[in-house]
Amino acid sequence: MVGQWFVRSLEDHPWFELEVLAASERSAGGIYGDLVRWNVDGSMPAAIRNKPVLPMDPAIFSDHGVRLLFSALPADRALAWERPLAEKGFRIFSNASANRMEPDVPILIPEVNAGHICLIEAQRSKKDSGGYIITNANCTTTGLVIALKPLQDRFGLHNVIVSTYQALSGAGYPGVPSMDISANVIPYIEKEDEKVDNETRKILGTVAGKGPVQPAPFDVVASCCRVAVRYGHLETVVAQLEKDFDERAAMSAFSDFRCHACAKLPTAPRQPIILREEPDRPQPRLDCDAGAPDRARGMSVSVGRVKKFGDRLRFYLLSHNTVRGAAGASILNAEYARTLGYL
Amino acid sequence: MVGQWFVRSLEDHPWFELEVLAASERSAGGIYGDLVRWNVDGSMPAAIRNKPVLPMDPAIFSDHGVRLLFSALPADRALAWERPLAEKGFRIFSNASANRMEPDVPILIPEVNAGHICLIEAQRSKKDSGGYIITNANCTTTGLVIALKPLQDRFGLHNVIVSTYQALSGAGYPGVPSMDISANVIPYIEKEDEKVDNETRKILGTVAGKGPVQPAPFDVVASCCRVAVRYGHLETVVAQLEKDFDERAAMSAFSDFRCHACAKLPTAPRQPIILREEPDRPQPRLDCDAGAPDRARGMSVSVGRVKKFGDRLRFYLLSHNTVRGAAGASILNAEYARTLGYL
Amino acid sequence: MVGQWFVRSLEDHPWFELEVLAASERSAGGIYGDLVRWNVDGSMPAAIRNKPVLPMDPAIFSDHGVRLLFSALPADRALAWERPLAEKGFRIFSNASANRMEPDVPILIPEVNAGHICLIEAQRSKKDSGGYIITNANCTTTGLVIALKPLQDRFGLHNVIVSTYQALSGAGYPGVPSMDISANVIPYIEKEDEKVDNETRKILGTVAGKGPVQPAPFDVVASCCRVAVRYGHLETVVAQLEKDFDERAAMSAFSDFRCHACAKLPTAPRQPIILREEPDRPQPRLDCDAGAPDRARGMSVSVGRVKKFGDRLRFYLLSHNTVRGAAGASILNAEYARTLGYL
Amino acid sequence: MVGQWFVRSLEDHPWFELEVLAASERSAGGIYGDLVRWNVDGSMPAAIRNKPVLPMDPAIFSDHGVRLLFSALPADRALAWERPLAEKGFRIFSNASANRMEPDVPILIPEVNAGHICLIEAQRSKKDSGGYIITNANCTTTGLVIALKPLQDRFGLHNVIVSTYQALSGAGYPGVPSMDISANVIPYIEKEDEKVDNETRKILGTVAGKGPVQPAPFDVVASCCRVAVRYGHLETVVAQLEKDFDERAAMSAFSDFRCHACAKLPTAPRQPIILREEPDRPQPRLDCDAGAPDRARGMSVSVGRVKKFGDRLRFYLLSHNTVRGAAGASILNAEYARTLGYL
Repeated sequence: MVGQWFVRSLEDHPWFELEVLAASERSAGGIYGDLVRWNVDGSMPAAIRNKPVLPMDPAIFSDHGVRLLFSALPADRALAWERPLAEKGFRIFSNASANRMEPDVPILIPEVNAGHICLIEAQRSKKDSGGYIITNANCTTTGLVIALKPLQDRFGLHNVIVSTYQALSGAGYPGVPSMDISANVIPYIEKEDEKVDNETRKILGTVAGKGPVQPAPFDVVASCCRVAVRYGHLETVVAQLEKDFDERAAMSAFSDFRCHACAKLPTAPRQPIILREEPDRPQPRLDCDAGAPDRARGMSVSVGRVKKFGDRLRFYLLSHNTVRGAAGASILNAEYARTLGYL
Repeated sequence: MVGQWFVRSLEDHPWFELEVLAASERSAGGIYGDLVRWNVDGSMPAAIRNKPVLPMDPAIFSDHGVRLLFSALPADRALAWERPLAEKGFRIFSNASANRMEPDVPILIPEVNAGHICLIEAQRSKKDSGGYIITNANCTTTGLVIALKPLQDRFGLHNVIVSTYQALSGAGYPGVPSMDISANVIPYIEKEDEKVDNETRKILGTVAGKGPVQPAPFDVVASCCRVAVRYGHLETVVAQLEKDFDERAAMSAFSDFRCHACAKLPTAPRQPIILREEPDRPQPRLDCDAGAPDRARGMSVSVGRVKKFGDRLRFYLLSHNTVRGAAGASILNAEYARTLGYL
Repeated sequence: MVGQWFVRSLEDHPWFELEVLAASERSAGGIYGDLVRWNVDGSMPAAIRNKPVLPMDPAIFSDHGVRLLFSALPADRALAWERPLAEKGFRIFSNASANRMEPDVPILIPEVNAGHICLIEAQRSKKDSGGYIITNANCTTTGLVIALKPLQDRFGLHNVIVSTYQALSGAGYPGVPSMDISANVIPYIEKEDEKVDNETRKILGTVAGKGPVQPAPFDVVASCCRVAVRYGHLETVVAQLEKDFDERAAMSAFSDFRCHACAKLPTAPRQPIILREEPDRPQPRLDCDAGAPDRARGMSVSVGRVKKFGDRLRFYLLSHNTVRGAAGASILNAEYARTLGYL
Repeated sequence: MVGQWFVRSLEDHPWFELEVLAASERSAGGIYGDLVRWNVDGSMPAAIRNKPVLPMDPAIFSDHGVRLLFSALPADRALAWERPLAEKGFRIFSNASANRMEPDVPILIPEVNAGHICLIEAQRSKKDSGGYIITNANCTTTGLVIALKPLQDRFGLHNVIVSTYQALSGAGYPGVPSMDISANVIPYIEKEDEKVDNETRKILGTVAGKGPVQPAPFDVVASCCRVAVRYGHLETVVAQLEKDFDERAAMSAFSDFRCHACAKLPTAPRQPIILREEPDRPQPRLDCDAGAPDRARGMSVSVGRVKKFGDRLRFYLLSHNTVRGAAGASILNAEYARTLGYL
């Protein structure tokens, strides 16, 4: 599923060209159009339909002049392959969870923790061959930390409680059986509560030198659920803030938030956070694709229902799980790395 | 919708007999089977199909020897009718929200605040004619306070944060348009966040003499959402507790909870709270009808995913919104009132 | 709902400009952005948000220099308004069913029965003031007759049996209650079976002079159902053909079908029918928007699962109910009328 | 999925006792409650939870005194196992499709073709060891032939056209991925169109002596689709009849239909066909469980929307796919075989 979104998002990318498609032994050896059951809205890009799916072989990648790899591998494959490939000099932008919590691997979101990219200097491969791994966050974490960042900056965060309404596409394909979710909610997503907690604290943590990251000192209590929505993770958040604040100031913190590191990145949205003031927004179906310009569709996080309760701020957020929370996030990271000369 | 559940739940009730069906002018004057689009699973009870729907006229009620009224009126009608009917001596068990927050009206849940029934002594009608109003809580509040009660008793409550996944049936009929909710979540239910906060604090508050209730001194931050489920409100809860506790003790508080006031009430579930230890329960589809014996199906609240985070307890709960949270709740209240000789 | 699709489809139309929005008394008098709950994917066009919604007053239309009207009126309003407006000289392209079966009103689909436009010469208003009414077909009929036309031309039609799987949007807004359709099929759509029968025979009928139409001499047995899909009516069709045929020839009839009358119309799809040879297509979600160029998205009918059974041909078709079956159809009709100098 | 329905339907069966649960090597060797993800509404019967799942071994079956086997094996396993088990003397009532079209195996529906049971006399195993295979029809076929039978008897059938709206549970578990079916229809079910055609003609065919069956001499054109419904296959049918008929006579044919062979079978519904005269019935959600007495819930086929079009009769039918169309059908067959002394 995420692989398909990579394919779609890299079509006509101004900086990157999709040169090679690779897969593990089981899947390699045919034509992309035959191997893949296309699930993304719209049709499979014509240019990709007849491309061969090659085996995961560094020599083949090099033969094609490839140095930048986007990884949508399952966790176990990512664990086996990403480090060795980095050691061969490949620059890996990974959506896999396998290496995210490694001390020398950043979970990078340019709008939030651009400085964490320095962690890659601690990767042995970086020095040896120039190769490295940069990960993006879990889809649920991504929307959350983008929304929390301006609150942390202006008011300080004491703790965070989040409940989620996660889309079916987050489970990949075939993913959730229809008999389980039809007219139902599944109140559990394996390891998800923990990922949201750990990743959020790492991303919002501080880093000195080559790291490691000093995690942010607050708790994140996450209660994750699956709902019968196609795309877009909705989250309700209650954040206890450290400083006094008023509701209007919190709303401004969201809507004024900008990313200076992203100014010229093709996939960066003009506004990382779009504040909705209608009582019944954001909604997955209506707000999932928020983000401008066109190349950044789905890259903005929508925030709404902002309300102050004493020292706590309640709000809802919505972000596109396979764009902002997966393929788009990796591509944005690669764009950012490029502006720093890391490619 | 709630009226239909009253009809269904009163079929073969051992203590009560459905003698009269009444509606406001607009709907009165025909046969129940013609006026109602039956929406409850199973068929309309045969005995009710040909019953006339009478106008709301105290004289007619008296002619039929009726003194006990169940009210599923819309809020504005309830406001106009319930007090005057109580003043004529009728005992009103109301699911309407109109009078819930009145100082002399209890929001009664026998398992939780049986003692609040004394509030009716402050109703002028009680003294004048013996009539009174007893309400049950909003459907979302009901499940929440039942689950909070044993925590409050054993550990004390400091504050409560709740996010909801509410079923379509909670919006009545025709209710939510399918174009709004199909493959979507609606992140807003009018006035619901506030009801959950206010009602919870009233129900868990203390009362002396004839009241009024001293509301419980903690906050409830409620974030209410509608999901595409037919029956069963799921809620994720984080409660900050006052005393030290361990996770196992909290789980026991749930599963050991019993209602002594309810011992012989036909509609009372043997276990008000059913603790689920599977990682992926409770689920609306699977657990909505929890409750034994048969007459109490749908009257138990299912609790699961219990986890301690420092001084906070996280858990999920599920309760049947039209049974436990509406018709069943009113009927249980009437049963309880009867054991006290109030009918 | 259809009004919104008109607004969306007329944005940036090369020939037409949306000058005036009008509604019946009840709705007129405010700003479009306030009066309308936007339901179409994407946002309301900015240029329209602040446009006033004017009353249905011919004088106002004339003051704005308007002569061409698109009508998405409910049937009773259409009956009351369309003829009188035509008599004042307005050219009315109507999606309403009210006048479709009138002998002097064409149900026009340029790909199918372009010649039926001559019926307007029989409208008294045409002679008196130049005004007339042209309707498009019911959404279900539209896809059906487009698919039947090449079969009729090449093989002759003996009879037609169709079963439908119709999208929620076809019922307008609020439309189908979610409690009715959630995890269900509704096996009935009021008057729909009859509309499909009558309209199909009229559209595929013959006309001489100013008409009226001699209906096609075959039966259409239609069994219409509503399913929980947002956009796109799927239909299974069994057509008994008059001449011998083979399966491949039938498939070619579909894929070779072109519309000469439409050659330069902006909203006409290059291919009225797109033949799918995969076993599991067309699907509402994947094929609803078929049609090129961009302005004709949703204007092609997708046909698949073509199979011969003796003298009968079985196939499935899918067409976008609010584009091909409503707003897009009316706009295409106006474009066609313009090329003939009728505007 | 079907296995679970067998377990549920055999709970408290008056004639049969569930003695042994068996599975192929892959699944055997544990406790039923651990191996099975219970998907049927309500809870797993307590008596079954701790039963071991044994390997498919005739010796084990014999040790337990078992001679009657219900088979819910996948097609390939059924092909490998059912004949050899029959040859060891087991009486096999199979829901698998593997042997249905074998000339010496009946597809038995007591209401429709009770006489076809004689086919088992042609099975070599019957003579050698007393063992035999009796199958029930595909879930879609079952409802169809029950509704066609009284038409065939009274009016003769010339041909049949059927379109289906099939429930998710028909695809087993995990079955249809939610990403495929959410807000969609899947217009294809592998081999289903053909099964409906072939099985219908066999079941409605004639048999002399030990068979084989002379298939009924008419065509069945089936167009099968999957919709997002949990239980209950809806079908729209157009049957061309041989004799003159009027609509009312056809309706009587449905509602008067009775099964004499079934008079005392515990799982037989009093009325095989329930005629609905409301315009919007049958509906999967409301009518799926039709059937009385309680043990026969889900065993009646609901028919509605009956209308005459010349020599063709159009109607809709609904039947419970895992009860009437699977487990219930096999159990009814075993009950019938028992009354004939075949067990």
